[in-house]
Amino acid sequence: MVPMPEAFDAVDVIVAKRDRRELSDAQIRWVIDAYTRGVVAEEQMSALAMAVLLNGMTRREIATWTAAMIASGERMDFSSLQRPTADKHSTGGVGDMITLPLAPLVAVFGVAVPQLSGRGLGHTGGTLDKLESIPGWRAALSNDEMLAQLDGVGAVICAAGSGLAPADKKLYALRDVTGTVEAIPLIASSIMSKKIAEGTGALVLDVKVGSGAFMKNLDRARELAETMVDLGTDAGVRTVALLTAMDTPLGRAAGNAIEVSQAIDVLAGGGPADVVELTVALAQEMLAAAGRGGQDVAAALTDGRAMDAWRAMIAAQGGDPDATLPVARHAETVVAPTSGVLSRLDAYAVGVAAWRLGAGRARKEDPVQAGAGVVMHAKPGDPVRAGEPLLTLHTDTPERFERAIEALDGEWEIAPAGTSIETGPLILGRVARD
Amino acid sequence: MVPMPEAFDAVDVIVAKRDRRELSDAQIRWVIDAYTRGVVAEEQMSALAMAVLLNGMTRREIATWTAAMIASGERMDFSSLQRPTADKHSTGGVGDMITLPLAPLVAVFGVAVPQLSGRGLGHTGGTLDKLESIPGWRAALSNDEMLAQLDGVGAVICAAGSGLAPADKKLYALRDVTGTVEAIPLIASSIMSKKIAEGTGALVLDVKVGSGAFMKNLDRARELAETMVDLGTDAGVRTVALLTAMDTPLGRAAGNAIEVSQAIDVLAGGGPADVVELTVALAQEMLAAAGRGGQDVAAALTDGRAMDAWRAMIAAQGGDPDATLPVARHAETVVAPTSGVLSRLDAYAVGVAAWRLGAGRARKEDPVQAGAGVVMHAKPGDPVRAGEPLLTLHTDTPERFERAIEALDGEWEIAPAGTSIETGPLILGRVARD
Repeated sequence: MVPMPEAFDAVDVIVAKRDRRELSDAQIRWVIDAYTRGVVAEEQMSALAMAVLLNGMTRREIATWTAAMIASGERMDFSSLQRPTADKHSTGGVGDMITLPLAPLVAVFGVAVPQLSGRGLGHTGGTLDKLESIPGWRAALSNDEMLAQLDGVGAVICAAGSGLAPADKKLYALRDVTGTVEAIPLIASSIMSKKIAEGTGALVLDVKVGSGAFMKNLDRARELAETMVDLGTDAGVRTVALLTAMDTPLGRAAGNAIEVSQAIDVLAGGGPADVVELTVALAQEMLAAAGRGGQDVAAALTDGRAMDAWRAMIAAQGGDPDATLPVARHAETVVAPTSGVLSRLDAYAVGVAAWRLGAGRARKEDPVQAGAGVVMHAKPGDPVRAGEPLLTLHTDTPERFERAIEALDGEWEIAPAGTSIETGPLILGRVARD
Repeated sequence: MVPMPEAFDAVDVIVAKRDRRELSDAQIRWVIDAYTRGVVAEEQMSALAMAVLLNGMTRREIATWTAAMIASGERMDFSSLQRPTADKHSTGGVGDMITLPLAPLVAVFGVAVPQLSGRGLGHTGGTLDKLESIPGWRAALSNDEMLAQLDGVGAVICAAGSGLAPADKKLYALRDVTGTVEAIPLIASSIMSKKIAEGTGALVLDVKVGSGAFMKNLDRARELAETMVDLGTDAGVRTVALLTAMDTPLGRAAGNAIEVSQAIDVLAGGGPADVVELTVALAQEMLAAAGRGGQDVAAALTDGRAMDAWRAMIAAQGGDPDATLPVARHAETVVAPTSGVLSRLDAYAVGVAAWRLGAGRARKEDPVQAGAGVVMHAKPGDPVRAGEPLLTLHTDTPERFERAIEALDGEWEIAPAGTSIETGPLILGRVARD
């Protein structure tokens, strides 16, 4: 068989973007398809990614790029369900286990939540890693199993199949090793290609801002949020973004089992105030975007309905909701050297410490420790007493304590008692095309 | 054996240049060395090359980058010769066979010319391809053969050994497929790393400007020339650059054997005026840079001394200077449709036509046709008569005529008889650090 001649030359496409010209739809469709087929080489795509990072893309280019990544794989279809669908995506933070209480909470109100999640890489945790600390629970579901669970329980959190946006998988791995992660057009199209291919009807984006997030400042976070909301809206997905603070960790735990335990506290009507606030806010946005707004979301956390949905969701995937969660074999405590008020606790440092304790992985193929992580006994604004525990570090491998403690060194501060600490709002902004 | 940990991380180096920070000497030395060892991957180097192209490098960065490429391989040493050495490098043009008469001409005056040359790629020809049209001539010499020939004949044109600047070889091939050829820091360090490693004492650069050159305008060409003169000077090589016009081809032939034939005309005291002018100008610069200036160079072309040196040089490498040169099996003529004066003949178009006829190659491993190319019967400013030949196209593969003629379409113009045609000077400028 004679191969079809290629429609474009990779160098021409790279040179066009390098020289600040707008790429045509045909060029973009070709380059993504040819990259997926291996005709455009990794070194060519990395040069193009760097040119995109430095020279940007127009809204039309980003939309076409995203559509081409969707077209590189299969699309899921939830139209057979008897209810609307809504999904949430977080750009990644420290202690961000919101998906765990959120998915069953939204399901309570008759909106199906098809939550395809990932694993952690670097200092941010992964939802699947957290859930896998529940004995028996499995992340891999077939499309039929997923549909059946959405129809029955109404919520599913599982691994994305390899068929969704394979071009993105390849490109994401490439960007990770070529210094081209931080391009807003590429971040936005990576996230949105998977979410649009997944077939959700509504999508709420939690765009994190601060030291523990990929976006360190509000302007860049807002630009990313606007780009993603545009992409979702243009693709027919009702999309809303919240910009939320990530200078200090969310909640009081950063790890796997210890975050699941905290999620269960929230589902039982308790838990840290910031986790509850964000869970309720995101649930309200998801329900509104799915056409079921205006309901008393918080009530479902206190009256047990969300907990029932959680138990059903975990059990449907083989997990035992009553099992004792794994505990790390070793613990070490960081105590407050003086009394006063905790004035700062850096999210990035806590994330790195949890990662080094074994909660995260350095390479995609590494295992994680279910019990490892950092428990925070105080958050900024809380009073602390000299000699009392500030942080407890957990790991199965005690040789990791030293470097974890090193990561935290200088990253928390205690102010004199009575100092007023301005912690700022958790929700910094909202982006929608209404 | 436990591998030594790497001094840097490739992503950190890429990100530094991406974010417009100056790279340290240690970072540059590491990245070139690690790339040569295969520790920095092709896709990482291409992202770095794109960042360098878009964000530039300082003079110090370029000098360190060049030194690191030299350090990646061996250096040649001509200090045992009893005479000074001088080399010439052209950035590549159409019909540019100047090296052929130039090397023996300079040797006549007691300056040794160690001319390491390359093969053509794209629309510009390669000196080795041209010489290989001489029956028996061979491009590959050992270092000892090269030294012996320089000591005897005084001039050698041969292939660069694989030991010189291997980092450049790898990087050049990568840049070719990733749209990162046109970065002045990378062009300058690529050329100068090979020339400095080659060990010449003096170097004259012929930086081409115009449609048939890599540099399309004088400002960019001057920037490249200045960068290279700085690099050579800083490395202790007496370096001068001429900026020369390449809007129309040099001489009256673009191909392989047909350019050798024209070189022989020049060595016999004839040949096209522009080729003679540039050959003499470059020879004077080389002799002056080698400390043997102020001689009557042109006389050696008319009195047979340069021809004698040419014959000795060709014979020393196995070539038969009296052999009949190959002629292509098919020829086709483009005739002047009207009488008048040729007002324009585009260098790039002629280069592409010769390339398509088989004189050049699309991929490094392709063979070239010795007899293929374009003979020009008129140059801009020459009178032409309706019905008489303007161009003759030569090839062994007549199916190539159509696309070659297509390349020339609209790329030459005839003005009414008597029109005064401003052809402009051949030598546009000179760059030296005196």
